[in-house]
Amino acid sequence: MTDTNTNMRLKLPITCFILEIILIILFGVLVEYDKETDARKWHHSNHIFNSFHPPFPGFQDVHVMIFIGFGFLMTFLQRYGFSSVGFNFLIAALALQWATLMQGFFHGMHGGKIHVGVESMINADFCTGSVLISFGAVLGKTSPVQLLVMAVFEVTLFAVNEFILLNAGGSMTIHTFGAYFGLMVARVLYRPNLHKSKHKNSSVYHSDMFAMIGTLYLWMFWPSFNSAITAHGDDQHRTALNTYYSLAACTLSTYAMSALTAHDGKLDMVHIQNAALAGGVAAGTAGEMMLTPFGSMIVGFLAGIISVLGYKYLSPILESKLKIQDTCGVHNLHGMPGVMGAIVGAVTASLATKEIYGGIQAISLAVTLGMALGGGLLVGFIMKLPIYGAPSDASCFEDSIYWEVSSKKLLETSKLYNDKNKSKNPLRLSSLYKSYHYNRKKKW
Amino acid sequence: MTDTNTNMRLKLPITCFILEIILIILFGVLVEYDKETDARKWHHSNHIFNSFHPPFPGFQDVHVMIFIGFGFLMTFLQRYGFSSVGFNFLIAALALQWATLMQGFFHGMHGGKIHVGVESMINADFCTGSVLISFGAVLGKTSPVQLLVMAVFEVTLFAVNEFILLNAGGSMTIHTFGAYFGLMVARVLYRPNLHKSKHKNSSVYHSDMFAMIGTLYLWMFWPSFNSAITAHGDDQHRTALNTYYSLAACTLSTYAMSALTAHDGKLDMVHIQNAALAGGVAAGTAGEMMLTPFGSMIVGFLAGIISVLGYKYLSPILESKLKIQDTCGVHNLHGMPGVMGAIVGAVTASLATKEIYGGIQAISLAVTLGMALGGGLLVGFIMKLPIYGAPSDASCFEDSIYWEVSSKKLLETSKLYNDKNKSKNPLRLSSLYKSYHYNRKKKW
Amino acid sequence: MTDTNTNMRLKLPITCFILEIILIILFGVLVEYDKETDARKWHHSNHIFNSFHPPFPGFQDVHVMIFIGFGFLMTFLQRYGFSSVGFNFLIAALALQWATLMQGFFHGMHGGKIHVGVESMINADFCTGSVLISFGAVLGKTSPVQLLVMAVFEVTLFAVNEFILLNAGGSMTIHTFGAYFGLMVARVLYRPNLHKSKHKNSSVYHSDMFAMIGTLYLWMFWPSFNSAITAHGDDQHRTALNTYYSLAACTLSTYAMSALTAHDGKLDMVHIQNAALAGGVAAGTAGEMMLTPFGSMIVGFLAGIISVLGYKYLSPILESKLKIQDTCGVHNLHGMPGVMGAIVGAVTASLATKEIYGGIQAISLAVTLGMALGGGLLVGFIMKLPIYGAPSDASCFEDSIYWEVSSKKLLETSKLYNDKNKSKNPLRLSSLYKSYHYNRKKKW
Repeated sequence: MTDTNTNMRLKLPITCFILEIILIILFGVLVEYDKETDARKWHHSNHIFNSFHPPFPGFQDVHVMIFIGFGFLMTFLQRYGFSSVGFNFLIAALALQWATLMQGFFHGMHGGKIHVGVESMINADFCTGSVLISFGAVLGKTSPVQLLVMAVFEVTLFAVNEFILLNAGGSMTIHTFGAYFGLMVARVLYRPNLHKSKHKNSSVYHSDMFAMIGTLYLWMFWPSFNSAITAHGDDQHRTALNTYYSLAACTLSTYAMSALTAHDGKLDMVHIQNAALAGGVAAGTAGEMMLTPFGSMIVGFLAGIISVLGYKYLSPILESKLKIQDTCGVHNLHGMPGVMGAIVGAVTASLATKEIYGGIQAISLAVTLGMALGGGLLVGFIMKLPIYGAPSDASCFEDSIYWEVSSKKLLETSKLYNDKNKSKNPLRLSSLYKSYHYNRKKKW
Repeated sequence: MTDTNTNMRLKLPITCFILEIILIILFGVLVEYDKETDARKWHHSNHIFNSFHPPFPGFQDVHVMIFIGFGFLMTFLQRYGFSSVGFNFLIAALALQWATLMQGFFHGMHGGKIHVGVESMINADFCTGSVLISFGAVLGKTSPVQLLVMAVFEVTLFAVNEFILLNAGGSMTIHTFGAYFGLMVARVLYRPNLHKSKHKNSSVYHSDMFAMIGTLYLWMFWPSFNSAITAHGDDQHRTALNTYYSLAACTLSTYAMSALTAHDGKLDMVHIQNAALAGGVAAGTAGEMMLTPFGSMIVGFLAGIISVLGYKYLSPILESKLKIQDTCGVHNLHGMPGVMGAIVGAVTASLATKEIYGGIQAISLAVTLGMALGGGLLVGFIMKLPIYGAPSDASCFEDSIYWEVSSKKLLETSKLYNDKNKSKNPLRLSSLYKSYHYNRKKKW
Repeated sequence: MTDTNTNMRLKLPITCFILEIILIILFGVLVEYDKETDARKWHHSNHIFNSFHPPFPGFQDVHVMIFIGFGFLMTFLQRYGFSSVGFNFLIAALALQWATLMQGFFHGMHGGKIHVGVESMINADFCTGSVLISFGAVLGKTSPVQLLVMAVFEVTLFAVNEFILLNAGGSMTIHTFGAYFGLMVARVLYRPNLHKSKHKNSSVYHSDMFAMIGTLYLWMFWPSFNSAITAHGDDQHRTALNTYYSLAACTLSTYAMSALTAHDGKLDMVHIQNAALAGGVAAGTAGEMMLTPFGSMIVGFLAGIISVLGYKYLSPILESKLKIQDTCGVHNLHGMPGVMGAIVGAVTASLATKEIYGGIQAISLAVTLGMALGGGLLVGFIMKLPIYGAPSDASCFEDSIYWEVSSKKLLETSKLYNDKNKSKNPLRLSSLYKSYHYNRKKKW
């Protein structure tokens, strides 16, 4: 179907071209290789190689979480798989470039130049993760152009927040900033008539299977995620180990709470796909401290319980009372566990008799929440302008608004699966298609 | 549908909470960081870094095999995808925690403490792999509570077996122990009326596609799996290389045998998904020896042939004669190839004029088989107690017993795929759903 | 259904067994461990460990691209998923063994022996990638036996080409050789009546989702792919970094061009799945040079534009005018971007005042194109012999020719999804199946 408002023929190309050309020009002016990447400076640096988790494999693990993990985690919606994985792909590709510039600019230039290398790649992927968390809150209700605009502003504000915190917050910042920024944007973009498309705001069997791919990749690589930017050596070991135990304990409490709270004692895929990851978020800040596996497991155990309870009882209230329509429940997966992680970090730091550091953690959380909510409010109103081709209330959670999804494709599938007599002979089956002329080649 | 017996409202939460709380207490009492993970002991250890396959990336590869590899390999069943990947996730999360304790306890405490670090994580994942192999034998016929009980006992017995063998068996132990333990459990849990659900004990097109994801991840990372715990340096190189060639040769013989034995010369997905992996199992023990690529290819070539023949001719006999209903055919993928690997290891060791070592291999196999069969018998009877909410014969291989699988979900899919006139207009298509009120948000 | 011509009962087993036995014999005679893999030579070599991207994790990333990346990228076809991922698996398993021999033979024997180790594994995977690119051009129109024959010849010619170029071409060679070899084979195998199966030469919703898995793995690991064989140290950093930026820029221009050119301003999955990867191809040769992120982004940006335009306007012309039926559009993904990459490499080299090297690049491209087109012509005619069980025009793009795809499987699915009254009760649902006796166990 065609809709002049949501038609991306010009809106999307213009946005992408302008953004990418600006990026290319800025990279040309500002960016140069760091000393580990530049042929002339190479001999200065071997210090990061001899590490527990070599930087490049660490980067690749984080990269998989960004594109496969976040991308497929959001494919649970029955008719929104192309958009979930496809828009995740698009905004991540933009965000990591923009983040390289913003982080380089705010984290210190070298003689007027931004130095790039594997560490800037990892940091850019982290900042991108924050944008993808916000994407989860507005999933299904926004156009790709709106999402690109959100990415540009959120990356900028995230880098400013990092600058203010002097990176004290650790990975907690990624989750809390991303979650509360996204929730505020969702609040501003509140749709009172979203019920018009609620029949599509649900999963089907195969879409839940695809979402599990995302869940498991995030779960498996979370130890890499939390340890990728910690100091090398024992810190990195400890962070990975603590995250691993926190996630394992979280998984058991998630299954327990899901069966306890869900309809007639059955497990709910929504909980398994999301709450089982809360342990990774909650271990984000304290993970590199001497939290011990014991402490990590307690943190993960509680994170799973809080997250499931959030999905079950808090999210409906957020929608009905606060008018926040949080499609993926990022508040339960990233918001609350992120805040919990910050508190755990502050307490753990204090116990290590570093009261000051504990205080810094508390302040970091407050600043991050303030920046996220304020920024989300501002950017939400920018995104609300009626110029980006947002879907109507009835066409939310629907791929065919922005993607070529031939109804014949669906029809062919049903034909294929339904004809009883002929399906025994695939060749004769093909005769069924004679009347349809959808052809991949046609699309060229 | 609801079934008071299989209702997990209380059974699963109680089991998960009790197990996790016990784990947390024991970790608090017994576990501490190893010298590479502890901030105070760090300076003692750089020896494992400078390796061909750094320990943490090696761990991540194994971790992917455990959660994606085993999880998706079992998703071939048409109506059991949630349980295959979801229960795999649950029991693996429990098993890796319990294995850390059991292996730490039996493999030597340090001043009354169990030391944990990347090597304990890899060993725990291996032990978990053994439990997941057993899971394959009882797939579709057990409740999550039964599986958690199985995991606790199997992990314990596996650690005892490792203790007895002084780790002589290598990765062969994982496969043979897991397979024969699982087969014995399946024997004890034999269901004479399983035919009532045999229509669901089969695959559909997309479920076979999901299973291929599991197959390929196991296949690709098997060189990491076999080399992750070998001595670093040339041993690790050699193990990875031998495994790689064994798997490649195995794949060709698997395709050949599948076409040769399957119905009218067509390839059978069951063979491709499973038998092509037998080469990795068979190269498990001898892989680190000077087996040579030549020897590895012969081993893999034969493993593929044996495995396909097992699926085609032996499995039906196991079911009809020995009353062993081996859902995933673990005997063909892990059992026979594991025994073959042990023999190859013994022979290779002998040829290297280490007769004694060869003898140790043979004894290791005998001990492992004895422990596995005896343990499986015992644990099978424990699992047979009618208190775990096992599915009825007619409700085996069915997700909706334990998972929220809305019939409306399925209905929506069919509607989506069937309406001919309206499907040309996705917006009007949505009108079809008006009558259904299944909504992801409702599930909160 | 059965077709005596396409029946693989004997053709496939005979081919696989003969090829594998030849391989085993040649490995026995010619292959030995390299100094890093041999227990007796180990002490000589630590030089490759201390690298930015350790060799084995680098190999594993490339391995994932070969089996998951290429395999799933081709699963977009609605009825050809088993063959796409399954034949990719088969020919890759053969090609990497044969490539080890051919590359070892042409790249220099050591005292009459071919030395194997992680570097030979990476090189063999690269050569395999070239074969899989060619597979994309003939996807759906060839039998597994034809593909195995193609693999043997293409690997040989690829190794000869590498030998002639002294490896000057870098990864550009893989793409241009694979693409133009495959296109020439497709030309020779031209089917004037392919329209008989064009209704199956298209995607359905879930098949496009599976294809995105392949796309994302190729995209994410492309930095590993391009940097896996470069000199270690800063070259490797730079190659990974340049590839990463080239791909990011390419993704934005791909989305822009897709919306600009596709039907009523909607995004086309064909473009997203393929053109977004062109940036990795185009950065293949110059990636290790001082191309700078700025230069890399320009290259990627242009590659995305060229690739989408190729899918939209050039591919139909290739089919109608040149009679080249390029199923996956490899000319747009690997062909043109590969040539572009070679030119960029030549220019970049020249700018670095290495005119000679620039010249070498240009000559390398010419030689590669000549070898690919000539070889493709020859091998195309060998593949055209009517002895391999190729599918008829009407049975192209159809799994059930070569795979056990029970029509009952499909039927069950439709039943499962269609029954309205009973589907509310899964147990009673099962009664629907009573009439079907397809059973996984039956297949043993």
